[in-house]
Amino acid sequence: MFTGLSAFPHSPLRNDVFDEESYASLVMRLVTAGVDSITALGSTGSYMYLDRAERRRVAETAVRHAGEIPVLVGIGALRTSFVRHLADDAQQAGASAVLLAPVTYQALGDDEIFGLFEDVTSGLSVPLVVYDNPGTTHVSFSDELYARITALPNVASLKIPGVPAEPREARARVDSIRAHVPSGVSIGVSGDASAATGLNAGCDVWYSVIGGTLPETALRLTRASRAGDHVAATAESTRLEPLWALFRDFGSYRVTAAIAEYLGLVAADSLPRPVRGLEGDARRRVARVVEELELRA
Amino acid sequence: MFTGLSAFPHSPLRNDVFDEESYASLVMRLVTAGVDSITALGSTGSYMYLDRAERRRVAETAVRHAGEIPVLVGIGALRTSFVRHLADDAQQAGASAVLLAPVTYQALGDDEIFGLFEDVTSGLSVPLVVYDNPGTTHVSFSDELYARITALPNVASLKIPGVPAEPREARARVDSIRAHVPSGVSIGVSGDASAATGLNAGCDVWYSVIGGTLPETALRLTRASRAGDHVAATAESTRLEPLWALFRDFGSYRVTAAIAEYLGLVAADSLPRPVRGLEGDARRRVARVVEELELRA
Repeated sequence: MFTGLSAFPHSPLRNDVFDEESYASLVMRLVTAGVDSITALGSTGSYMYLDRAERRRVAETAVRHAGEIPVLVGIGALRTSFVRHLADDAQQAGASAVLLAPVTYQALGDDEIFGLFEDVTSGLSVPLVVYDNPGTTHVSFSDELYARITALPNVASLKIPGVPAEPREARARVDSIRAHVPSGVSIGVSGDASAATGLNAGCDVWYSVIGGTLPETALRLTRASRAGDHVAATAESTRLEPLWALFRDFGSYRVTAAIAEYLGLVAADSLPRPVRGLEGDARRRVARVVEELELRA
Repeated sequence: MFTGLSAFPHSPLRNDVFDEESYASLVMRLVTAGVDSITALGSTGSYMYLDRAERRRVAETAVRHAGEIPVLVGIGALRTSFVRHLADDAQQAGASAVLLAPVTYQALGDDEIFGLFEDVTSGLSVPLVVYDNPGTTHVSFSDELYARITALPNVASLKIPGVPAEPREARARVDSIRAHVPSGVSIGVSGDASAATGLNAGCDVWYSVIGGTLPETALRLTRASRAGDHVAATAESTRLEPLWALFRDFGSYRVTAAIAEYLGLVAADSLPRPVRGLEGDARRRVARVVEELELRA
């Protein structure tokens, strides 16, 4: 389950209410494309902006429409007891695994972060993906902290941020992480612009923002690298450079929502306020990139 | 209401459940001391770690025990609609004002932060305090953003982070902020180590962490400065330097909880996991500072 392409769909809102129908369509699009797994309620899926009942409904909707494809569900929250409740809900909804980032308000020390993962993994009946997302959590994992946490029971995969752009440095980085984690734990790259480099450097899985909206595009890159055709994977990533430039300029979260809105997959204004969707020139630039790169699926 | 000492009590937990009895005692302690206002559910009051029902109960408990002293209630949350619900709850609980920090998961731009305050203030029937807390929200307010937001209806006060340590620089900073905000908007200093300098430099109010647990100590400093005795205020702040050193080393949030626990005001282990209370040497150092500075009230 923790190899290949894990696609992170957007959780669209319509007038501040979860748009179940559009979400179901997004999930079915991923099933048709044949992604390896679906991660509901990742950062792209707005997990921190939804309440417990909404998150339960998103998880249930994803599982209901995912068919045979395993669904991972994000369970991050600020308080350990809330995380445990979300884990219970995700498991009851039929999640095949859960994904946990150590979200912070007060900064946390390494022992506190380890304690969170210890408290949560001990009660799980499904595997857990450790989610290292420093841009939103403001937590910096050391390799030693990776080692401590991935040695916990039920930890199956580690989602790392982007790798260095230079292939040899990327390989060294992935090798170094691998030396710190148990052999059964898969390593997944995130930061979509890093995906080809990360997969070519030996990452097992791409935890992909764009895969949730443009699964065929993301699969082309993933399949090439996993088949050993590193040149083709790199070429596809290079072709997508205008998309990565949008991510750098506006953030992958808002750009992905704008793409889904532009393609008519979700209604306009699908992000949770106070976050605002892209407007004006930024939105026109997204449309231009979608057209020029023929990003339809 | 937005002058003098606003005391921020800790919201203690006991086995992960809000400890209403201890909280009521903390609030009554503030009433006895005669603080100018009480801010329930500030950062010190763990607002981001409590769910809506818990926050309603904290607000109700504070109002019930505050007597004639006005109670401000923190309403920060990640989604605008959640903030509006919390504002409704706070007003129904009898809050005299609300306090709002722009909490982030995805980083927010200035227009999004302004939009949050615009959406929330438009529905209020009580005044609002703008809460600038960059250490936890990861938002940097510019003076221009202060100006835009404090010009909104119902904005009554601005809680700023610490001021420069040098008195003339502190005065220049406060004057500069005052030039950007409407004359009716009070300016409040936070960062307790900065309080004397901030009040001496013309801040109207001290939004005080330590005031929620040691109100008499905080009032001595506040009353001296507000009466024009800047020397006495500075002397009291200098006397408290070992306390400020603890804040620098371990954060005011954990230190304040440790003091309340040491004084027997709340049960042990009163913070929400994954946050852990201070242990070992750190906890012993807190006890030593409490004894040496005679921090009893």
